[in-house]
Amino acid sequence: MNDRLARIALMRLAEPGDALMGGLVASLGAQAVVERVRAGRPDPALVRLLTGSAGDDGGGAGGSVGDGGADENDRAGRGAGGGGHDAGGGGAGGSREERIAGRLRRAFASWSARLEPADPRRDLAEGERNGARLVIPGDPEWPTQLDDLGRARPYALWLHGDADLRFSCLRSVALVGSRAATPYGAHVAAEFGAGLSGRGWTVVSGGAYGVDGAAHRGALAGGAPTVAVLACGVDVAYPSAHHQLFTAVRAHGVLVSECPTGSYPTRPRFLIRNRLIAALSRGTVVVEAAVRSGALSTARHALSLNRVLGAVPGPVTSETSAGCHRLIRQGAAVCVTTPEEAIELTGALGADLARESHGPVLPRDELEPETRRVLETVPARGGAGPAAIAVAAGVGMDTALACLGGLAAAGYIERVSRGWRLRPEGPRSPSGR
Amino acid sequence: MNDRLARIALMRLAEPGDALMGGLVASLGAQAVVERVRAGRPDPALVRLLTGSAGDDGGGAGGSVGDGGADENDRAGRGAGGGGHDAGGGGAGGSREERIAGRLRRAFASWSARLEPADPRRDLAEGERNGARLVIPGDPEWPTQLDDLGRARPYALWLHGDADLRFSCLRSVALVGSRAATPYGAHVAAEFGAGLSGRGWTVVSGGAYGVDGAAHRGALAGGAPTVAVLACGVDVAYPSAHHQLFTAVRAHGVLVSECPTGSYPTRPRFLIRNRLIAALSRGTVVVEAAVRSGALSTARHALSLNRVLGAVPGPVTSETSAGCHRLIRQGAAVCVTTPEEAIELTGALGADLARESHGPVLPRDELEPETRRVLETVPARGGAGPAAIAVAAGVGMDTALACLGGLAAAGYIERVSRGWRLRPEGPRSPSGR
Repeated sequence: MNDRLARIALMRLAEPGDALMGGLVASLGAQAVVERVRAGRPDPALVRLLTGSAGDDGGGAGGSVGDGGADENDRAGRGAGGGGHDAGGGGAGGSREERIAGRLRRAFASWSARLEPADPRRDLAEGERNGARLVIPGDPEWPTQLDDLGRARPYALWLHGDADLRFSCLRSVALVGSRAATPYGAHVAAEFGAGLSGRGWTVVSGGAYGVDGAAHRGALAGGAPTVAVLACGVDVAYPSAHHQLFTAVRAHGVLVSECPTGSYPTRPRFLIRNRLIAALSRGTVVVEAAVRSGALSTARHALSLNRVLGAVPGPVTSETSAGCHRLIRQGAAVCVTTPEEAIELTGALGADLARESHGPVLPRDELEPETRRVLETVPARGGAGPAAIAVAAGVGMDTALACLGGLAAAGYIERVSRGWRLRPEGPRSPSGR
Repeated sequence: MNDRLARIALMRLAEPGDALMGGLVASLGAQAVVERVRAGRPDPALVRLLTGSAGDDGGGAGGSVGDGGADENDRAGRGAGGGGHDAGGGGAGGSREERIAGRLRRAFASWSARLEPADPRRDLAEGERNGARLVIPGDPEWPTQLDDLGRARPYALWLHGDADLRFSCLRSVALVGSRAATPYGAHVAAEFGAGLSGRGWTVVSGGAYGVDGAAHRGALAGGAPTVAVLACGVDVAYPSAHHQLFTAVRAHGVLVSECPTGSYPTRPRFLIRNRLIAALSRGTVVVEAAVRSGALSTARHALSLNRVLGAVPGPVTSETSAGCHRLIRQGAAVCVTTPEEAIELTGALGADLARESHGPVLPRDELEPETRRVLETVPARGGAGPAAIAVAAGVGMDTALACLGGLAAAGYIERVSRGWRLRPEGPRSPSGR
């Protein structure tokens, strides 16, 4: 079982954002973790691994898994219900090692039970048959900003849609807010979506009614991709009334999920999903939210990930704007009243990153020989998957993926639902899409 | 001519907030200034006085008058059109002394022409016949916070209404905003007015349509006084449709003007009046204002006087809230969504001042003999003016005024339209009114 299949298995056996699993994967790698879970009980070395210096996970928000609730991502994972393993009896007393050993035993029991029926090969085949693609850390399309999530980083992502996720998110703003949006909130979300998209900025949001849906609809009217991060499988239209909207997002953007295909959303998954919206985008703008809105969890994630945060004010007579006003009053969010102000806020911190996508165009002649061979196999119409391209170019899969990533960054090729194809306009900044 | 009459004359001969006049009055006193103006041309000693160290005016925002526009109050006075004397030809070149000498010559010419027809005794008699009262710096009812205006401090104030201005403003919030308020803005202004007044906080505002009127109407529904600062004489109902509103304010608060009785408002006077609203109150809250609203000049005055500033957000789709949002975005104003938040904002800085009005109650037996004599002459019904009280108590006018101020502070007596009377409830904190 390779890394790709192991990560598909992880999606089945642990809940998204489970910090304990994240810590193990960061230390051992996905394949080794799956093997250990298959072997049954955790061996004592794992406890030492998790309680010792776990600084090798590379994630800024990582740290030790030991004391639950001590770090934000851990809390996020466990607070959402699925990721924690303290819920069962015992484990409260004893030394730190004993507590972690207890959590690990309970986690292994739960993971083993789920591993039994998992069939990663079938999952992969089914997902690809449906038109989706799997991306894992190290893939060219993997959005490296997700590494900021540390131990709560997703194991893998299912993507479905024509846009390249990584490049789409280089200049992106998350628009979040209440499902029960007022007409005012829906209007503002659509205006912001259209304004951002019209200026070449990608909108990132969920797939819910209210602000999410209005933001995507607005974004579809502009020229930039829109990214919908779902709490269900990318093949599951939830809510079903958004079936057409998701079809449109696939054509002009991309659907994203860290859940296995076919899975339905649960309330904890909505909350844990919010960290992806915050982490994918350069900044988050809360369009309309009551003080107890779930959108505020996205805002908290954005802050804990050092992303910029904005909030749109509304009538003080509207409870649905009270969450926005509180964020502004606390100084946690900047008051944002127009799409331009959202861009100003988000662009300021990351001018470097935005420039990355405008990098100097590399003339075709100056490409590395392998890269040029890969480019020559990319079709102008339709699209080809990385495996087919690797075979045709006579390079290994890893080389093909690396070359494709570089070619996309240089503007030669673009992601479509069936793989990669040449950009009709040739090499230029992909931000112009 | 005493100080009181001299200041009435100053109201006639110089525009409100004239920093040049303010500087002369601070240095020489009102009587001496009127005498010099009557004498004709300014003597060279005045130029030396204004260019030299003029640090004896006691006002924090004072400073040198020399270079027009260098300080905020000077700018405020001159920006409003009436106060500056640079508008005429010449004076642009030359040394600092020459420029000031030129300004002073032009100012004296204008003041002399207005002094001719002025009749301060008639003004005083007429004002008092109409039920108004004049207060000047040093009077018990003079709001000493106006001294923060430095050279732009008013020469005197005409007051008309039952509330004591000084004590009313100890716990006060200015509510300002657009004359062309939307229904939303008018609703919020009334809610804030009622909420503040119901919690014992005085509302300070202008007398215009829109936010001003709605704030007063709301405040009249609460228990605390409301203060309307007019840009016309206290006896002039402008706008005339607010005649009934002003009658209600007189009964439950006080009308304030730095203009001579009978004078009609001019556009510059509206703007220069705004500094009084900012200076009288402990903090200013902009309820609804477009980016070019005159209410923002009150906000600027509040900031330059180190008063706290709040702004109420509104729909981002409303141009009439754009001024509020800009203040919040700039960090100049705190986002305020309820009357409680306005009090929290305003109360924080001045807890000391608010306590002042809750000072220890001085038992009647421990009053100074003169003060006790003055107290014994204050009627329980109707009301008596300070002059009548001074005569009846056998003390001088100055002593009577000082004693009356102390008695009011201790809660023995209260201001009514006809002068002073005993408080029915006896001595306790006047803030309970």
